[in-house]
Amino acid sequence: MQRGNVLVAQGGGPTAVINQSLVGVVLEARNYAHVEGIYGALNGVSGIVKENFLDLTQESIENLERVAATPSSALGSTRDKPDRAYCQKIFDVLKAHNIRYFFYIGGNDSSDTCRIVGEFAKESKYEMVAVHVPKTVDNDLMENDHTPGFPSAARFVASAFAGVNLDNRALPGVYVGVVMGRHAGFLTAASALGRIYPDDGPHLIYLPERVFDMDKFLIDVKTAYDKHGRCVIAASEGIHDKDGTPIVTKLMQKVEKDAHGNVQLSGTGALADLLCDQVKEKLGIKRVRGDTFGYLQRSFLGVVSDVDQREARESAQKAAKVGIGQGLSGSIAIKRVGDYAVEYQLTDLSKIAAKTRVMPDEHINAAGNDVTEAFKQYLRPLIGTTMPDQSRLQAPKVAKVLHK
Amino acid sequence: MQRGNVLVAQGGGPTAVINQSLVGVVLEARNYAHVEGIYGALNGVSGIVKENFLDLTQESIENLERVAATPSSALGSTRDKPDRAYCQKIFDVLKAHNIRYFFYIGGNDSSDTCRIVGEFAKESKYEMVAVHVPKTVDNDLMENDHTPGFPSAARFVASAFAGVNLDNRALPGVYVGVVMGRHAGFLTAASALGRIYPDDGPHLIYLPERVFDMDKFLIDVKTAYDKHGRCVIAASEGIHDKDGTPIVTKLMQKVEKDAHGNVQLSGTGALADLLCDQVKEKLGIKRVRGDTFGYLQRSFLGVVSDVDQREARESAQKAAKVGIGQGLSGSIAIKRVGDYAVEYQLTDLSKIAAKTRVMPDEHINAAGNDVTEAFKQYLRPLIGTTMPDQSRLQAPKVAKVLHK
Repeated sequence: MQRGNVLVAQGGGPTAVINQSLVGVVLEARNYAHVEGIYGALNGVSGIVKENFLDLTQESIENLERVAATPSSALGSTRDKPDRAYCQKIFDVLKAHNIRYFFYIGGNDSSDTCRIVGEFAKESKYEMVAVHVPKTVDNDLMENDHTPGFPSAARFVASAFAGVNLDNRALPGVYVGVVMGRHAGFLTAASALGRIYPDDGPHLIYLPERVFDMDKFLIDVKTAYDKHGRCVIAASEGIHDKDGTPIVTKLMQKVEKDAHGNVQLSGTGALADLLCDQVKEKLGIKRVRGDTFGYLQRSFLGVVSDVDQREARESAQKAAKVGIGQGLSGSIAIKRVGDYAVEYQLTDLSKIAAKTRVMPDEHINAAGNDVTEAFKQYLRPLIGTTMPDQSRLQAPKVAKVLHK
Repeated sequence: MQRGNVLVAQGGGPTAVINQSLVGVVLEARNYAHVEGIYGALNGVSGIVKENFLDLTQESIENLERVAATPSSALGSTRDKPDRAYCQKIFDVLKAHNIRYFFYIGGNDSSDTCRIVGEFAKESKYEMVAVHVPKTVDNDLMENDHTPGFPSAARFVASAFAGVNLDNRALPGVYVGVVMGRHAGFLTAASALGRIYPDDGPHLIYLPERVFDMDKFLIDVKTAYDKHGRCVIAASEGIHDKDGTPIVTKLMQKVEKDAHGNVQLSGTGALADLLCDQVKEKLGIKRVRGDTFGYLQRSFLGVVSDVDQREARESAQKAAKVGIGQGLSGSIAIKRVGDYAVEYQLTDLSKIAAKTRVMPDEHINAAGNDVTEAFKQYLRPLIGTTMPDQSRLQAPKVAKVLHK
């Protein structure tokens, strides 16, 4: 194998376990004699073009393990989406630092960067492998049963809705919780695992995989409210009308777009407030509350799936094994085998890059306002082995004396 | 002691440990031979006047313990604030059911209800004790070092800001997190325990104990942003201008008021959005995000302080001991002794009822935009013994090759 340096970077939105992947690459890379230095790029690709590298060869195992257990990207991240000129700069830096093994932990944009940089290396006859290590709370990568980062965020969402449902049961009304997810509804759908009893909320779940119709929404809410005397709703930030226009933009005067040309959805309470106002005005329900889970759901300290931690570490170890041990480029995909176990498979970058997976039809109910049992079975093993218990009082009623 | 029945009820906003208090009363009450039945009122005082009681004598210990570990009020709650006529109805029902020991778990309004109902009993020469068992996430009860429910909510807020700070460090910008607390800033101030390193956020903390000035806020944000390249802000939902007008109402067309005549503050993202818009417009910073923690912070499944659980249980056991065992009425206050231990003291209801404690001056810094070390020392033992660890990479930088 080619002697040289390893570079690892983290891109896109942070997750609760993205540092497990970082540490998985670093510790596995230490096993190979042909690895000289192990570098970490600060702030993803933007740190690569500026040559902002840390020498991770000098990190103690003890501190690496503490970092692994810490949420959010320890190397820093970036929202830059490199074009070919940007990738050329990346390649020039990699070559100058004798990087022969490049690992990029990120979503589908990051896998595309691996692909393009790998092409530059091939064209220049520079021997280098580029391996994409998947992460995303959105769970939207092709070829993967699920993606590291999603199970912990799903656990946050399920725990939040379990609590919110209990709160709403104690003080009844309508509650709207808005969850991250522009195109893929997996994270919003995870709210269903907060339910234990048949009348538990969320009573309604709205996903970006289905067209959102305000009139139908209001009928749904009224039906649930009449039945339960309360209604808990999970809505994806990405819900949109039949023309694909995000519902949140209907009230916005200025629409903020990110580097990828996407409308800014997170970091504002506008969608929850809009839906609450509709319920108050059109249905005349008084106690209506809305929360936007925002940034809490992807890096909350202490809410993490142990299964997710393990898989984030193992998928990165696999990346290092195939990249450094076998000299192969690609992306590491998680495949489910048995019930429940996983295998890590090297997959062609072009199958992941710049593509988006959404929820399959069999995970969404016919009415488009809830998930199916199949989805709950899919999700349950992922969110971890230690979900807290919850119970209700079972006691019978006491006979009335004054109001007989 | 008077033979008769015990009634326990839960009022006001739910907390993560309010069922520990419920179960503390129920299990302790079982120790007394003069107790006949142990009833639970559904939905606080509103369930009492309707005689909606559960016979908790028939709950198994196993299920009671599972309920104790479940967040939010298992008996249901109410926002009703009884006047004298309402309290007369409560008393009539208590008498009809031979209730001789009445326990109301709640905030300062609940203690006032205990006081008034106790007066009716005295006037009618009906032998009955009324004991208030404190709970509130706001930590605003007089005579108490702190109040059950607050430490778990504080742990949520500290954990949320720890995560949000790490997220903001990975993808720098300005972040505003809005925390519950109308008059008392304790819960917002708990964000300070999310900090580990000197440059960690929240970099600014705004409390309802100080006047909020928008121009000063913008100067503070600019100063922090210039210093750190980012800025994380914790703001109480109750921040107000020098006339006492809540900042959130400045943008609202319709102001919603609750049964207590208070402006509705929670369940809307308006304040975070307003502060973010100001930062974007006046400071020209592009990446500005705001979250409102809303209902997540008071009943999130699995984020709970073990110290809070224990104290909620013990304060309720103490209430049952003095009420049923000694025939005394009052409120159970938590007093801090040593470092760190507590004692539970029976306190006169009139010292708690309808009064509000706010943060002492020595807990707030001179500039009014942060807490002091004294506050952190006060809070640290409360949030529990198992706060998750966090760490940063320590490695040195790699020398640049191309950009020397």
